[in-house]
Amino acid sequence: MSTQHQAIARCREFLADHQIAMGEAINIRHYTDWSNYKHIQPFAVVFPKTTEQVSKILAICNELKQPIVPQGGMTGVAGAGIAEANEIVIALDKMNQIEEIDPYASTMTVEAGLTLEEAQNAARAADLYFPVDVGGRGSCQIGGNIATNAGGLSVIRYGMMRDHVLGMEVVLADGRVLNLMNKMIKNNAGYDLKQNFIGAEGTLGIVTRAVLKLSPQPKELTTCLCAFPDYLSAVKLLRHLQKRLTTPNAFEVMWDEYYQLSLSWMQNHANPLSQHYPIYAVFDVEGSAEDLENILAELFETGEILDAVIAQTQAQAHQLWLIRETVPAEISSTGRPLCFDVSMPIGQLGEFKAICQDRIAKQYPQLASLFFGHIGDSNMHIILDLKDQEEQVIDDLIHGLDEIVYDVVRQFKGSISAEHGIGLLKRDYLHYSVDENALNVMKQLKQLFDPNGILNPHKVFKSI
Amino acid sequence: MSTQHQAIARCREFLADHQIAMGEAINIRHYTDWSNYKHIQPFAVVFPKTTEQVSKILAICNELKQPIVPQGGMTGVAGAGIAEANEIVIALDKMNQIEEIDPYASTMTVEAGLTLEEAQNAARAADLYFPVDVGGRGSCQIGGNIATNAGGLSVIRYGMMRDHVLGMEVVLADGRVLNLMNKMIKNNAGYDLKQNFIGAEGTLGIVTRAVLKLSPQPKELTTCLCAFPDYLSAVKLLRHLQKRLTTPNAFEVMWDEYYQLSLSWMQNHANPLSQHYPIYAVFDVEGSAEDLENILAELFETGEILDAVIAQTQAQAHQLWLIRETVPAEISSTGRPLCFDVSMPIGQLGEFKAICQDRIAKQYPQLASLFFGHIGDSNMHIILDLKDQEEQVIDDLIHGLDEIVYDVVRQFKGSISAEHGIGLLKRDYLHYSVDENALNVMKQLKQLFDPNGILNPHKVFKSI
Repeated sequence: MSTQHQAIARCREFLADHQIAMGEAINIRHYTDWSNYKHIQPFAVVFPKTTEQVSKILAICNELKQPIVPQGGMTGVAGAGIAEANEIVIALDKMNQIEEIDPYASTMTVEAGLTLEEAQNAARAADLYFPVDVGGRGSCQIGGNIATNAGGLSVIRYGMMRDHVLGMEVVLADGRVLNLMNKMIKNNAGYDLKQNFIGAEGTLGIVTRAVLKLSPQPKELTTCLCAFPDYLSAVKLLRHLQKRLTTPNAFEVMWDEYYQLSLSWMQNHANPLSQHYPIYAVFDVEGSAEDLENILAELFETGEILDAVIAQTQAQAHQLWLIRETVPAEISSTGRPLCFDVSMPIGQLGEFKAICQDRIAKQYPQLASLFFGHIGDSNMHIILDLKDQEEQVIDDLIHGLDEIVYDVVRQFKGSISAEHGIGLLKRDYLHYSVDENALNVMKQLKQLFDPNGILNPHKVFKSI
Repeated sequence: MSTQHQAIARCREFLADHQIAMGEAINIRHYTDWSNYKHIQPFAVVFPKTTEQVSKILAICNELKQPIVPQGGMTGVAGAGIAEANEIVIALDKMNQIEEIDPYASTMTVEAGLTLEEAQNAARAADLYFPVDVGGRGSCQIGGNIATNAGGLSVIRYGMMRDHVLGMEVVLADGRVLNLMNKMIKNNAGYDLKQNFIGAEGTLGIVTRAVLKLSPQPKELTTCLCAFPDYLSAVKLLRHLQKRLTTPNAFEVMWDEYYQLSLSWMQNHANPLSQHYPIYAVFDVEGSAEDLENILAELFETGEILDAVIAQTQAQAHQLWLIRETVPAEISSTGRPLCFDVSMPIGQLGEFKAICQDRIAKQYPQLASLFFGHIGDSNMHIILDLKDQEEQVIDDLIHGLDEIVYDVVRQFKGSISAEHGIGLLKRDYLHYSVDENALNVMKQLKQLFDPNGILNPHKVFKSI
């Protein structure tokens, strides 16, 4: 009997029938993630209801050396949750309770299968706020957000998922349960073990519960669109806002190709500015429109802002944000998007864009590369639409683009993954951003936490 | 020849004479830290000037299995930097350069021997701000701040040292250099290895360089002293400020025994409030006095604030802060202080105080225990003055007090170390806050990073 059959047979001793799906009974949502990288029916999907069940499942798989792949909402775009046909998936969908909201500590204690949106809603209902937010909020799960150290538009103000996890319970490959359920802001009692599991993409342990740090609800926001003569002027505005007003809740930069394409796709939407400019930022910031106007006026005087519009109504704010949101939404729904998610020191993103776009244009003149991003977090996204490319060259094309983008990232000592993780899709380029000694230590940690290599094998890097 | 003689002999091959101190030539500042726990002349102190020298020193010690203790400014209070007589100290005093301030990225790249105050000053000179601040700022070093995950009064607004370290260079026990010098806010390329060395008290590696995240300079602050009927009313004010105004830059709570003692020690200083109350908070917050007054007025109406004074001048603000600062300063200079640094969920600190103080009073009626702390960070300090106790019972007394305080901390699922670390002094109580599985994983990490147990041995926990 194969190890996967043996493992499932032993799991049946403590899991009910509805906690195990096999073959055609497996919902196709378990086949792939939002990258659509490959579609595979895993051998089985198990749905534990308790930490003890997770522990037993892992102990069995560890003993049998049976690979097991943790899945959350499968909204990732790096293939980190995709299982092979001989692998067992563990899905925490049935562990989705909110255990407690503590208004004094300003914390929320949850099971890892809770969706991000449910966590956000529960916080809001308690007059608090869980600031991590990503497009997949309706289906992505807190456990997955932790495993990928989720980012998003609000990182500039509130930080990444890592900054919102006060405590966790995590099950190790051999079934040992680590209770790290801390509710305190300060705790220096020994090594901060939980950090190892945040952003490890499920390769070192499976998070089963977490204590999340909540924030006060944001105050009223003013939305603004600004145009600049160059990239560094956009950075300068950001630093002025931070110094004089406060850190914006979101600050997104777009270059003109992106801006123009967006407007062309937005029906009945005229350019809210009087003409086109090299680069734009749309942002939300707390504070009055008057305070904001004063800051903008000063930078207008020095020529560092060329044009600006402050939304006067909610509807106008929404329209300004649509300029930022339309391109990826449209390419995702009607085209064949290829997205990059890289980071480098903030001052260099403009230079990176120029070099990278130039190299892409020279090698692939038929492709338009569109640059935009969370520049306050050092994070640039690039999107291309491959829908008009011939099917047989697509793989080579993607490979060629990867080579160009990641080579330029390496030149700038940047990261090939700002917020999307490594998974399978960027695994071969990890050494562009991580030197040999560091990569070896990562492999040593993998060996320490998962000596049999059963946990999400070959994700992030090839297991030994 | 002993291993320590051999090690120093080999270090002489690449270190100049003035980079090695032995015997009487060792400055007594290397004997102990601010805990005064014990005074020991180490075998030698080496002062590397480059990362390469650190690497060579560690490789030699690792080969010879010679213990080596990293020291910063020796302002710690847990004994983590104290070396035994057969141990070699490595001090990074000569690696104290500021390599770069990047105004676009808002980062500072420094060597680990730089003092905190120099880092703060350099940030300010660049119109930026490095918010980590502790009493030892003039002598403590960035490397030590990282190794202890330093806290302080500003954590509530800005976070701990961990939140300000974007990148680091760290030398492992065997001399391998890990280059983790990231300047980006977002970087999800593999495991975030640097987290392992933050707060590890020099037991897993020696940090040689760091990239620090800088903030905008704070805006003008309003200082206020409030009195409350009970502890939870103080927490409620904090949450109101956060929601309506912003998070205070510091928010310190004192119970009445502490407050009265402070006033009695402050010459010519009348109570700024009209009478005494059960509990007080002094805080600094951005925003106008008028906005603050409106919030206070509402809570005054509901009886959750009993009295308050807002400083009208810098001098008044200073006087209000003196009430918070006088007790520890006075006991440290004229008495024999015993301090505790614990944390637990914010809502429970009041209950903890009542139980803990009661148990101390019952067992040691001759001692006054004074409670105060950074309650927004879940952090309580307790200070006692042992100066009138007989010398021969002091050790038993300290042991007895440790037992009481840490036992109550354990009941509340709190931490025996909020911000001071474990070092030697709290090592025997680590298991009060860390369960067996977690402690075992910490030991596994120690074994992985330092298989010969040469790095700051027996600190945090007894090495295997």
